[in-house]
Amino acid sequence: MTFNFSSVIEHYAERHPEREAIIYEGRRLSYGQLQERCEALACALQERGLKAGDIVAILLKNCPEFLETIIAVNRLGAVALPVNWRLVGEELVYILNHSETKLLVSEREFAPVVEAVRGRCPALSHVLGVGADVPAGWLVYDELLAAHQGQRIAAVEVGSDDLHRLMYTSGTTAYPKGVMISYGNLYWKNIAQITLFGITAADRTLIVGPLYHVGGLDLPATSVLYAGGSVVILRKFEPLALLETVQRERVTNMWLPPSMINMLLQAEGIWNYDLSSVRFIIDGGEKMPIPLIQKLLSLFPQAWFADAYGLTETVSGDTYLDKAKTIEKIGSVGKPCLHLELRVVDENDRPLPPRQPGEIVLRGPKVFKGYWKDPEATAAALRNGWFHTGDIGYLDEEGYLYIVDRKKDMIISGGENIASLEVERVLYEDPRVLEAAVVGMPHPRWGEVPVAYVVVKPGQTVTAEELRAACQAKLARFKVPHHIFFIEALPRNPSGKVLKRELRLRVAEDAAATARGGSSSPSQSANPA
Amino acid sequence: MTFNFSSVIEHYAERHPEREAIIYEGRRLSYGQLQERCEALACALQERGLKAGDIVAILLKNCPEFLETIIAVNRLGAVALPVNWRLVGEELVYILNHSETKLLVSEREFAPVVEAVRGRCPALSHVLGVGADVPAGWLVYDELLAAHQGQRIAAVEVGSDDLHRLMYTSGTTAYPKGVMISYGNLYWKNIAQITLFGITAADRTLIVGPLYHVGGLDLPATSVLYAGGSVVILRKFEPLALLETVQRERVTNMWLPPSMINMLLQAEGIWNYDLSSVRFIIDGGEKMPIPLIQKLLSLFPQAWFADAYGLTETVSGDTYLDKAKTIEKIGSVGKPCLHLELRVVDENDRPLPPRQPGEIVLRGPKVFKGYWKDPEATAAALRNGWFHTGDIGYLDEEGYLYIVDRKKDMIISGGENIASLEVERVLYEDPRVLEAAVVGMPHPRWGEVPVAYVVVKPGQTVTAEELRAACQAKLARFKVPHHIFFIEALPRNPSGKVLKRELRLRVAEDAAATARGGSSSPSQSANPA
Repeated sequence: MTFNFSSVIEHYAERHPEREAIIYEGRRLSYGQLQERCEALACALQERGLKAGDIVAILLKNCPEFLETIIAVNRLGAVALPVNWRLVGEELVYILNHSETKLLVSEREFAPVVEAVRGRCPALSHVLGVGADVPAGWLVYDELLAAHQGQRIAAVEVGSDDLHRLMYTSGTTAYPKGVMISYGNLYWKNIAQITLFGITAADRTLIVGPLYHVGGLDLPATSVLYAGGSVVILRKFEPLALLETVQRERVTNMWLPPSMINMLLQAEGIWNYDLSSVRFIIDGGEKMPIPLIQKLLSLFPQAWFADAYGLTETVSGDTYLDKAKTIEKIGSVGKPCLHLELRVVDENDRPLPPRQPGEIVLRGPKVFKGYWKDPEATAAALRNGWFHTGDIGYLDEEGYLYIVDRKKDMIISGGENIASLEVERVLYEDPRVLEAAVVGMPHPRWGEVPVAYVVVKPGQTVTAEELRAACQAKLARFKVPHHIFFIEALPRNPSGKVLKRELRLRVAEDAAATARGGSSSPSQSANPA
Repeated sequence: MTFNFSSVIEHYAERHPEREAIIYEGRRLSYGQLQERCEALACALQERGLKAGDIVAILLKNCPEFLETIIAVNRLGAVALPVNWRLVGEELVYILNHSETKLLVSEREFAPVVEAVRGRCPALSHVLGVGADVPAGWLVYDELLAAHQGQRIAAVEVGSDDLHRLMYTSGTTAYPKGVMISYGNLYWKNIAQITLFGITAADRTLIVGPLYHVGGLDLPATSVLYAGGSVVILRKFEPLALLETVQRERVTNMWLPPSMINMLLQAEGIWNYDLSSVRFIIDGGEKMPIPLIQKLLSLFPQAWFADAYGLTETVSGDTYLDKAKTIEKIGSVGKPCLHLELRVVDENDRPLPPRQPGEIVLRGPKVFKGYWKDPEATAAALRNGWFHTGDIGYLDEEGYLYIVDRKKDMIISGGENIASLEVERVLYEDPRVLEAAVVGMPHPRWGEVPVAYVVVKPGQTVTAEELRAACQAKLARFKVPHHIFFIEALPRNPSGKVLKRELRLRVAEDAAATARGGSSSPSQSANPA
């Protein structure tokens, strides 16, 4: 039946063939053209042996072919696997082999990494190259399309639980896990966003965050396509190019990770554009201070700044903060979307009263059915019928959710829980601090103790002693960081989240360097503190 | 999980308690108030023994309590059964007993019919009376709400296939059949309408068609509630009151059956209102002539007149004609909605080429799962995985659907198919003809022969001979009506469809009267033809 994601595109191609679907670097694809290209690609891939259930990995920077591949692959009943292009070779080999990827779609820019891993992936039978200068030995995307132009192929019939997409998340375990996203998961996510934001065919979303991430792909791009609207794609983030595109294309909404918002607001010349077409901007991840939000809202005068919380396992967007509550409930990520049930529970899955932090658990039709070939991780995550997010939060008396921490980012010191966010907040209160992240360091007596990584603002000076004194004045003794390391920048993932995992990996070494009589931080020299 | 229809209302009551949900005769209910009332009612009904799976019939004119009952009953996992208040006692007894209705919600106006049937329905334990002057022996709606005010009750967990509603259709069989509408059916219908019309929380729909009909309830009222918008309810149709309400409440959309459109456009004083808020009007049933459509669009200058085709079995709205095609494709009901597959097939379910009429069959998540306690009718209707609508239509080369006839309205005369619509079209070409309906009459030699019922315009004169001559000039001989009966009005159902069943029941008698030497029509005297 017409439940295939490719059938959704076909539906709009049937009803409104001339409507704009994708805009990218001067190219404009109507729904009719998009559908033709996807059917040609599906025919080409079928001819090369691709069939229902096969996995097709996508290692591309943002481009129309990224979306076309997903649609064409789905048309055959096959499964798209967007891959983070920041992964190193070993991670890529693991994902391609674990998923048994049959076909990899990539481009010239990634030829070295593709060639390095190709021989180590026995299931991988083809590499398909997008764009110009496709390396020898790869299939050429544009040639396949030309060869199969005008060919038609029916969409494979799929049901609600059939697999639309795989996405690997690194999360907390040693190896990344493959999140299985079904058609039902995707559509219920779409419906939640469509009803919440009033997304219609008149909407034009800007994709500037990476398409391999649920943020770029689903917050809310897939919803806009589902509603028959248009997506404008940028290959990379560049503040003024972004604003120029918004103005030219009358963009109505977008997802901007916190890192991009920061860079955007710090750029010169941002006030020269008409950005009044933007109805909403979705953000999520870190808390933004009120002045920054106000600056963002001055820049986009009609926009609803929707702080959100979501996970790959739920196809993004589980809670959103409503427009009217932007300032009143600042720091909150809002309330659950349609058809999603959210609880904050203790370790026995019992709901906790307001203000008491516990693990956030979720239930509803947009929640994934499990991890690919990993029944143990699936059973652990989906126990008692609820998805256990591993995130710690609390609800206020009115049901607004506040994220406290990743469960694994909670520091347990002498039996006491320390929310790293609470310590970070104190550090951020010092106007000289640009960024701060607190993690646990193994300790022989306390199990763990908190330590802080701090980035000082350019041209500013601050000492570890000053920051420790501030913490001592405002926090219980056991929460005061044992070490404060100054570094140049916090490690972040592409969606802007701080990679505390990386900090934890280096914390022992940094502490040892300090103990060896070095400065209080190996990176301190970078800041004249 | 939060899949209950009552959970949808609760969702908006949580997020936007102050938003208007229902407007009716000076009353304005916010989502917060609506939710409170529905929970109080659910508590009251639970206390009186209502439980999951029970059937609650609703015999009410349009009012907020109609919707509240559906929501409250769903909250308990019970099933709402809207009943056509035009039914006679015998039909009502059949439906209440066949469905094993436990509770009937009604009002003073229907006290005589309720009291007449109550004793013959053994499963019926309570009658609940809405409004003033509730008869003795009935529960009183307002008293229940007052007694349980402020009480909370959680929604019963339901799944996609669980029963949301029952609706009896008379259709073609001797007894009405109970269409089982699941939550999934309802929501996929909503999603199709929301994406097609861009329905958002800003929409305000007017309900003026009867709420016991999928038109009044679902085209698109339930979709507007699903999107968190507002519904304005009128108890009855009155042209100027309707227009005044549209103007005052800034109504953005509505369903208007053809009969109402006709009456509206014929009324005096319709040009004195600001009706620019109306974005779309859904219609369906009979073809409207272009001048009438143009008059409607002059009256509602911003409106999209969306001609539609749908059935109770699919929760309404299967195909819609797009705005840009209103005139170009006049007479077509458009293309299928999202996630709905439509075919025109022969008697062996083989798809037919363009322009060739056959039975319309449908497939998709909004198609019902069967008739209540009627496995035979279910198997007949849902054979080979497709819902067989019993309607005859054809697709043009571009995939636009045209309705030819009800399958059972096809007249088979000497082995030849006669589409009654084709004959009616010729009759309508005479400017003196107001209405015409052609049905088959049993005939010893030909099996059936076509006969016509005609309503002449007031003050006009036409003879049967003149009309037969016109038919002879334009139709094959076997298609020319054997009799032309003049009557005062065609029998119609509440949504404006001509009840050909009733004409077929009387045709033999009318023909006999003619044969006995009466006038060529027993009703002819009503028109000075």
